[in-house]
Amino acid sequence: MSTAKKRVAIIGAGPSGTSCLRAFKSAEEKGAEIPEIVCFEKQADWGGLWNYNWRTGLDENGNAVHGSMYRHLWSNGPKECLEFADYTFEEHFGFPIPSFPPREVLQDYITGRVNKSGIKHWVRCNTAVVTTTYDDATGVFTLTSKDNKTKEEKTEVFDYVICCTGHFSTPNVPSFPGMESFCGRIMHAHDFRAAEEFKDKDILVIGTSYSAEDIASQCYKYGVKSVTCSYRTAPMGFHWPDNFKTVPLLTKIDPNSKTCHFKDGTSAEVDAIILCTGYQHYFPFLDPSLQLKTANRLHCDSLHEGVVFIDNPKMMYIGMQDQWFTFNMFDAQAWYARDMILGRIAVPSKATMDADWQKWRAAEEAVEATDEANIRYQADYTERLQKLTDYPTFDIEGVVQAFLEWEHNKHENIMTFRDKPHKSLMTGTLAPVHHTPWLTAFDDSIESYVAGNKK
Amino acid sequence: MSTAKKRVAIIGAGPSGTSCLRAFKSAEEKGAEIPEIVCFEKQADWGGLWNYNWRTGLDENGNAVHGSMYRHLWSNGPKECLEFADYTFEEHFGFPIPSFPPREVLQDYITGRVNKSGIKHWVRCNTAVVTTTYDDATGVFTLTSKDNKTKEEKTEVFDYVICCTGHFSTPNVPSFPGMESFCGRIMHAHDFRAAEEFKDKDILVIGTSYSAEDIASQCYKYGVKSVTCSYRTAPMGFHWPDNFKTVPLLTKIDPNSKTCHFKDGTSAEVDAIILCTGYQHYFPFLDPSLQLKTANRLHCDSLHEGVVFIDNPKMMYIGMQDQWFTFNMFDAQAWYARDMILGRIAVPSKATMDADWQKWRAAEEAVEATDEANIRYQADYTERLQKLTDYPTFDIEGVVQAFLEWEHNKHENIMTFRDKPHKSLMTGTLAPVHHTPWLTAFDDSIESYVAGNKK
Repeated sequence: MSTAKKRVAIIGAGPSGTSCLRAFKSAEEKGAEIPEIVCFEKQADWGGLWNYNWRTGLDENGNAVHGSMYRHLWSNGPKECLEFADYTFEEHFGFPIPSFPPREVLQDYITGRVNKSGIKHWVRCNTAVVTTTYDDATGVFTLTSKDNKTKEEKTEVFDYVICCTGHFSTPNVPSFPGMESFCGRIMHAHDFRAAEEFKDKDILVIGTSYSAEDIASQCYKYGVKSVTCSYRTAPMGFHWPDNFKTVPLLTKIDPNSKTCHFKDGTSAEVDAIILCTGYQHYFPFLDPSLQLKTANRLHCDSLHEGVVFIDNPKMMYIGMQDQWFTFNMFDAQAWYARDMILGRIAVPSKATMDADWQKWRAAEEAVEATDEANIRYQADYTERLQKLTDYPTFDIEGVVQAFLEWEHNKHENIMTFRDKPHKSLMTGTLAPVHHTPWLTAFDDSIESYVAGNKK
Repeated sequence: MSTAKKRVAIIGAGPSGTSCLRAFKSAEEKGAEIPEIVCFEKQADWGGLWNYNWRTGLDENGNAVHGSMYRHLWSNGPKECLEFADYTFEEHFGFPIPSFPPREVLQDYITGRVNKSGIKHWVRCNTAVVTTTYDDATGVFTLTSKDNKTKEEKTEVFDYVICCTGHFSTPNVPSFPGMESFCGRIMHAHDFRAAEEFKDKDILVIGTSYSAEDIASQCYKYGVKSVTCSYRTAPMGFHWPDNFKTVPLLTKIDPNSKTCHFKDGTSAEVDAIILCTGYQHYFPFLDPSLQLKTANRLHCDSLHEGVVFIDNPKMMYIGMQDQWFTFNMFDAQAWYARDMILGRIAVPSKATMDADWQKWRAAEEAVEATDEANIRYQADYTERLQKLTDYPTFDIEGVVQAFLEWEHNKHENIMTFRDKPHKSLMTGTLAPVHHTPWLTAFDDSIESYVAGNKK
């Protein structure tokens, strides 16, 4: 099947989108004829959530700020677990670097891989997709995008659409009685930018996932007075410092006050409430019939092999799962999507996809409620996809082991796990230890983290 | 002309939208046949920006939070200048109340007028307009709206569209060098909610219009440590308290610091930067060909008599001007729009509208740069519209005089002007003085302000 004249729209040039760009470029480099690629990126540059922007709420164009990135964010998982199988950290930086890089270092790594391919002209930055529809009669998508600078809209036709816009942009913001007259700040993690803002403050963090864990830790590092951690189902379970307190869910706030009450009858006076209550899968730029509607889980609703939209297999999604695996899983997905578009992998019948989906949903529901079982489910998934394409094989069981070590380190000491080195599954190199423990390392620059660790 | 079967879409049920509802209802009460009215309101209730919502950024549906309303807001202009000519404060509350009501009181007044008409079923709350297009061939609008609760979209056809969505929702957020590493909070006035958050803080307020004036004053009332006011062109020129300082424009922020530098070579350490830098006219739910594109000025671009979109006279806008006059001007506009739709006022030719527009633009540009001259321009405009319909006449020169007194009071003492009483131009009653001076009145409730002032 010749695809030379087919057109593929990739929406978003973050980790998932750049995985797709790399996948197509890789095929081309090996001699394949590839479709025309247009990647729409609403931000000013590629890199997705790894770009930092001080803005919150609405951006300079009146659109929702995409990023939830904050200053001082360092990877919360070992870089060895997310390393690209076809482009190692050592290849990118020229020598080994420690295991938990600050934001800027990871941004450099992700964009570095695609930068070298000379494919930036595939990406239209500052261009937001406004609407996408599909016509059954013609079998093509009609996509309208808007240039943020000229404000001009352009309508084009595509054969495939791959949605790579992430699912950490549209906050899930629950309401609690009394919020309307709380005498402090209420914010979602999406709007968290600088931990210094909470120096000497009493904060309430609601939620128990990565945002809660990391924002609470950041605020501790930057001098918060106290942190009250509130959970719905179960506490985070780390050994927190002495100025932390763990309580069940917020029940109400006293009128015109800073007094928060919790389910166990205790209360706390806080200056700020930080809602670490997750994000919504939100795709308003797609026609409702094309929108993925799913909870944040390992096996998403409506997607064959976590990628292909079963109701319309020309519509694909990358990176929409709840994530342990990230960059290399996105690669495995992108290579899979690419091969389906190139005709190397046949699109199964709807009946087959439905049955397959049911099987994996049942398997997901049978997964034990332990981190290890969840990690293994996603490892098996990633391996399954990876075997279907020419994406380089890598030691996925090694990655699982690295995750388990990391979990162990976190539960031993949530403030020092970033000081531990992990071994690359791609190169076999054990990472050096960063020159300064995370808790006292206030220089987040790439210079400090990369050149500063050159032996 | 029978309009019984015509359909009118009103977008927004805030002050401008409810003026339209009232205008049509008033015609109906007087025996006219009126079109079918559907009013789309994306918020949970009518009242527009007078609803308070603790949320900032994105709302529970993933859409931009509409309101810029903050806790503790009291009217910054005399209520006598915005009083409806057909429904006085005295009629609504049963007795005279003071001149600068807190938010809740004004919300009650606006919604009270329409509540009594039994027309709430015209309003579809929690329903956002998604797209609106116009077809030249059929001469009708196709409007798609989305129910925030069911997430269902509905597409309908209308003969007229009146856009009443305000222009204080999409912030204009400029960037200054060094913002990316500022060690405090950066926010736009749109996200300001509780002045208590800035107690004992040093804040920088950028801008010189109402948001800057009022947010600086609020923060003073609630115990701010210091306020630095930064202006681009000219300072606000009030007699500020001793902990205020006025400086020219911010030039840069030192890296990784709270140190802000200004054009005059001075600097200040601040905890928060509050950008009071205005709003954009933003109508992404309208096809680009229907969107008003204008600066915030007395005589908007593209609108005949400030209401009718010249390129398509079936598209109308209410309240899009820079505003001295508000509620009663919106009424005059709404009655005018209504009468054009009812065929009582003929739609002029495009050439006539163009020429007329040019005339008023030239007049606007010739207006002297004084508050009085600007107020008089808008007074003349309001009077001109009011005379074209059956909207009750009122003493517009009296309103101008009230504005001038108010300006005088503000320049005498920006912290006490709200304690001065003004006289109703509708009833002739001089307002009572509120039982507590604004600066020490921390009870913003309707009970305190209304019943608390009953003689």
